[in-house]
Amino acid sequence: MNADASNPIPTIIFFIYLSFFPLIIASRNLKHSSDSQLYDDDSITYIWPLPSEFSFGNQTLAVDPNLSLAVSGNGGGSAIVKEAFERYKLIIFKHHSKLSKFGVSYDIEKLNVIVHSANEELQLGVDESYSLLVDKRDEHSIIGEITIEANSVYGALRGLETLSQLCAFDYGTKTVQVYKAPWYIQDKPRFEYRGLLLDTSRHYLPIDIIKQVIDSMSYAKLNVLHWHIIDEESFPLEVPTYPNLWKGAYTKWERYTMEDASEVVNFAKMRGINVMAEVDVPGHAESWGVGYPDLWPSPSCKEPLDVSKNFTFDVVSGILADMRKVFPFKLFHLGGDEVHTDCWTSTPSVKQWLQDHNMTGNDAYQYFVLRAQKIAASLNWTPVNWEETFNTFPTKLNPQTIVHNWLGSGVCPKAVAKGFRCIFSNQGVWYLDHLDVPWSTVYYADPLEGITDASEQKLVLGGEACMWGEKADASNVQQTTWPRAAAVAERLWSNKESASSGNTTLTALHRLEYFRCLLTRRGVQAAPVTNFYARRPPTGPGSCYEQ
Amino acid sequence: MNADASNPIPTIIFFIYLSFFPLIIASRNLKHSSDSQLYDDDSITYIWPLPSEFSFGNQTLAVDPNLSLAVSGNGGGSAIVKEAFERYKLIIFKHHSKLSKFGVSYDIEKLNVIVHSANEELQLGVDESYSLLVDKRDEHSIIGEITIEANSVYGALRGLETLSQLCAFDYGTKTVQVYKAPWYIQDKPRFEYRGLLLDTSRHYLPIDIIKQVIDSMSYAKLNVLHWHIIDEESFPLEVPTYPNLWKGAYTKWERYTMEDASEVVNFAKMRGINVMAEVDVPGHAESWGVGYPDLWPSPSCKEPLDVSKNFTFDVVSGILADMRKVFPFKLFHLGGDEVHTDCWTSTPSVKQWLQDHNMTGNDAYQYFVLRAQKIAASLNWTPVNWEETFNTFPTKLNPQTIVHNWLGSGVCPKAVAKGFRCIFSNQGVWYLDHLDVPWSTVYYADPLEGITDASEQKLVLGGEACMWGEKADASNVQQTTWPRAAAVAERLWSNKESASSGNTTLTALHRLEYFRCLLTRRGVQAAPVTNFYARRPPTGPGSCYEQ
Repeated sequence: MNADASNPIPTIIFFIYLSFFPLIIASRNLKHSSDSQLYDDDSITYIWPLPSEFSFGNQTLAVDPNLSLAVSGNGGGSAIVKEAFERYKLIIFKHHSKLSKFGVSYDIEKLNVIVHSANEELQLGVDESYSLLVDKRDEHSIIGEITIEANSVYGALRGLETLSQLCAFDYGTKTVQVYKAPWYIQDKPRFEYRGLLLDTSRHYLPIDIIKQVIDSMSYAKLNVLHWHIIDEESFPLEVPTYPNLWKGAYTKWERYTMEDASEVVNFAKMRGINVMAEVDVPGHAESWGVGYPDLWPSPSCKEPLDVSKNFTFDVVSGILADMRKVFPFKLFHLGGDEVHTDCWTSTPSVKQWLQDHNMTGNDAYQYFVLRAQKIAASLNWTPVNWEETFNTFPTKLNPQTIVHNWLGSGVCPKAVAKGFRCIFSNQGVWYLDHLDVPWSTVYYADPLEGITDASEQKLVLGGEACMWGEKADASNVQQTTWPRAAAVAERLWSNKESASSGNTTLTALHRLEYFRCLLTRRGVQAAPVTNFYARRPPTGPGSCYEQ
Repeated sequence: MNADASNPIPTIIFFIYLSFFPLIIASRNLKHSSDSQLYDDDSITYIWPLPSEFSFGNQTLAVDPNLSLAVSGNGGGSAIVKEAFERYKLIIFKHHSKLSKFGVSYDIEKLNVIVHSANEELQLGVDESYSLLVDKRDEHSIIGEITIEANSVYGALRGLETLSQLCAFDYGTKTVQVYKAPWYIQDKPRFEYRGLLLDTSRHYLPIDIIKQVIDSMSYAKLNVLHWHIIDEESFPLEVPTYPNLWKGAYTKWERYTMEDASEVVNFAKMRGINVMAEVDVPGHAESWGVGYPDLWPSPSCKEPLDVSKNFTFDVVSGILADMRKVFPFKLFHLGGDEVHTDCWTSTPSVKQWLQDHNMTGNDAYQYFVLRAQKIAASLNWTPVNWEETFNTFPTKLNPQTIVHNWLGSGVCPKAVAKGFRCIFSNQGVWYLDHLDVPWSTVYYADPLEGITDASEQKLVLGGEACMWGEKADASNVQQTTWPRAAAVAERLWSNKESASSGNTTLTALHRLEYFRCLLTRRGVQAAPVTNFYARRPPTGPGSCYEQ
C-alpha cells in the first residue's frame, strides 16, 4: 500500500508543518528534554542511543496492534522497509493477545514511512538521518499517526528502531502505548562508522549466532560488523580458488561456505549493517598453511606467511578476488598487526630472499602489507589496516588507508594529522574481552580525544568495539558483547553534548540498564550493567532494572 | 497433501515390510549398533538422546532441499506436524544456498509422516513413540524416502527431531546428507515425565527467553516445562481475580499477562512440551503480600502465608481457578517446601488460631497443604508437592499426590513403596544451579536408583533438571542449563542398557559434545561440556567439538 502515491499532498503538508511551524508544536505542551523532566515519573521513555534532537509532550497514545504501513517517496516501496516493519511489529506487539479486544479504540492506527531516495546501496556514509513524529493528526482529529521521514531506507530503519523504543506495553490496559506524546525527533549519527568486531577464528560462531549478534547490533544502531573471519587458529571460510584453505578449519563442521557469507551480508544489509571482512596478513595466518604448507616459511616456523614466494601473493589475490564477490562493502580489512619476522630471518630460504632483495624483516613486512594493499585496491577496496602498519611505515601506506587503532590512545591524532582516516578501538576501553573495564570507562572514551582541528576530526570515521574470541564462543559472545557494546554505540551515535549534559552518569546508567533489559526482552543475552567483571552472573535475586 | 488418503496401500505395505522382513533389511548391509561401529569413521551420525533401537547401513543419501511433506493417518493433517516440518526444514537446510543447483540429483525428495491418532491432547503419558526409516524406496528405485510413523503427533515431533540429527550438511558437496543409510529407528521414551524447571521469580525471564528454552528442550526431547512462576522475591503473574497480586512483580515491566502464559503454553504444545505451573504454598510466598498485606501473618513476619485466615485460601482458590483456564496440563505443582512456621507460632493472632484449633506449627503446615490440594483437586488437577510434604505427613497426603524429590537420594524409593508416584530431582545431581557438578555425575544419576520392584519402578514418572534463578537470569540461563540438562534428557529418554553399554563414558561424552555443538548451531548458548564449573567460558581458542 502506498497511500501517498495517489495523493501526494498530505506528505507535503506534513513536511511544511514540521519545518515551518515549530511554534505550533511548542504550544501543544511540548517540553524540551532535560534530565529532570526525563525522569520525573514512571511513564518515562528511555531511548538508547539518545537522539540528537527531540521534544515531547504529556499525552499518552494507544497504538493499534493492527498498525498499518503507508509508504511513500521514491524509496518507500523498498522490501527493506517492508520487512523491517514486520520485524518491528513483532517486537512492539509481542505481548498483544491474539484475540483483539472489542470496544478498544486506539489513538494511532497508521505508520507513514517516507523515503526520498530509491538508492539502496549501503556504503560508508550512507544517510542514516531520520525524523520521527508521533502525534494526533491535527487539532480536530482523534486519530493520530506516526511518520518517519528519511532520505534513505537506512535512515528509515533507524527511525523504526527509535519508534520501537517509544512504544511500551502497558500491563494495566494491555495496550501498547506511547507516553509523553507528541514526540518529535530529528536524529542523525555523530560518526559514520560504528562497528563491532566478531572473531570467528579463535572460536567458530555458527551462522545463527552471528545473526543474533547482527540483530542486536541493529537495536543499538551500530552499522558495521567487522568480521575477523580467519586467524592463526583456524580458517573457516570457503575459498573456491584455493579449496584446501578451509582444511584449516577446526573441523569439517566449523566452516562457512561462500553462500553462508553471502547470507550474513544480506541479513546484515536488511538491518542497515555493513559487513567489513578481514584477511589479516602477513601475521595471524598460520592456519592457511594447513591446506597449503608452502605458505609457511618452513614446517617448523609457520608465521608470518612466506614473503619470499609469489605463491603467497597468488593465494592472497585468490582469496580477495573470491571474497570480493560476496562482500560489497567498500572497506576491507587487511590486518597487519603483530607481525614478528623471526621466521623470515631464521628460515634459510626466506633469509636468502631478504638478502637478495636487500631487505630487513621490517622492510619485508612493509613490502607484504603494501603488496596486499595493491591487491585490495585493484579490487576497488579501500584498505583498512591495524595501527602497527601506520606506526612502522606511515609515509609508505596507500594514502587511502584507514588506520585502525587498537594499542592505546594517541594514534588517531597522529594518523589524522598525516591525512589518514582512522577508526578508534583503543584496547584499554573498547576491547570487550577486557572483562574488567566497567561500562562507564567504555562510555566516556571518545574517538576524538586529542583531536581539536575540525578538518582532522572529520578524518575520524568512528570507532569499533572488539569482541575477540579467545575466551568467547557461541555460549557467551552475546553476554560479553552486551551491554558494553551499547555504551560504544551511544558514544558513536549521539551528539556528544546532549549525551554528556546534566547528570549523565546517573541518566546514562538508568537508560543503559533499561536498554539492557530491552535487549533481554528481545531475546538477547545481555549481562547486568554494573557487574564488576563483564558477563558475571547476577549476585542474587533482583530486578533486571537494578543490576 | 495427503498421499495415502487416496491410496492407503503403500503405508500398509511399508508397515508389513518393516515388521515381518527384518532379514531383508539385514541383508542390505545393515549393522546393529555398537560403540566401535558408531565411531569408526568421520561420517558418524550422533543422535542425542540415543534411540531405543536403531540399525544403519553404509550408504550416503543426499536430501533434496525442497523436501516435500506427505501426511497420512487420522492425525496426519495436524497443524502441529505441518508447523514442525517447516521449523525442521529451516534447521536441516540452514546452509543451503537459495539458488538451487542445476544438475544435482537427490536421493530423497519426500518425507512421509503417518500419524494414526487425531487426538492432539498433550498429557502425561501421551504416546511419544515413533519409527523412522530413511531408505531408498525399494531395490529398483533410485529415489528414496523418509517415513516417520507414530501413534500421536507428539511421536511424530520426536521423529522429526531425530531425523534432523541424521541430516548433516556436507561442506564438500554442499548438500544435506544422511550418512550410513538405510536407517531404521524404533524409539520411545524410558520415562513419561522429562522435565526442566525454570524459575521466573528470582529473576524475571522475558517471554522470548522462555521460548528459546522451550525450543532447546525440544531438541533434547524433554517434555515438561516446570514453570516455577512465583516465589518470595516476586510475583510476576497476572491473576485477574486478585489483580493486586502482580504488584509483587519487581517492576511493572517484569510481568506476565494471562495471554503471555497462554502463549507460552501454546508455543510449548506445538513442540510437544507440557507446561506444569507451580504455586508454591504456604512458604516461598512473601511477594503475595505486596498486593494483599493481609496474606502476611504480620507486616514484620511475612512468611508462610497466614494459615489462620479464610482470605488466604480464597486467594489460593482465585489464583488456581484463574490459572486453570490457561494451564491444561493435568499436573499442578503446589510446592510445600521449606516451610518454617516461626511466623505462625510467634504472631499473636495466628498463635491464638493455632491454640483454638489445637494445632502445632507442623499441624498447620499439613492443614495448609491438604487444603490447597483439595482446591487443586476440585479443579481437576493432580497435585505435585515437594518432598517435605511427604517426609512430614506421608499418610495424610492425597493418594494421587506426586512426590517431587529434591533434598537427596532415597526419597523416591520410600514414596513409591507407599504407593505414591515420584519425580526425581536430587539436588546433588540434577540442580543445574549447582555449578560444580560435572556432566558425568548428572548423566549417571538414575531415577530408579534403589528401586527394584517392577510395580514400584512404574510409579517413578521420571525426573527433572532444576534451573533455579538466584544467580541465573536472561543473560545466562541457557548456558547454565545446557549441556547438562541434555545429560538428564538422555537418562530419561534412553533405554538404560543401550545408553550404558560399552565404553559409555567415551561415547556419551563424544555424543554430548556433538549435541552441545548442535545446540550452538541452532542458536542456543550451550556451554562447553567438560568445564570444571558449568557455564565457564572456554579457556582458550579451540574447536567446539573438543571443549
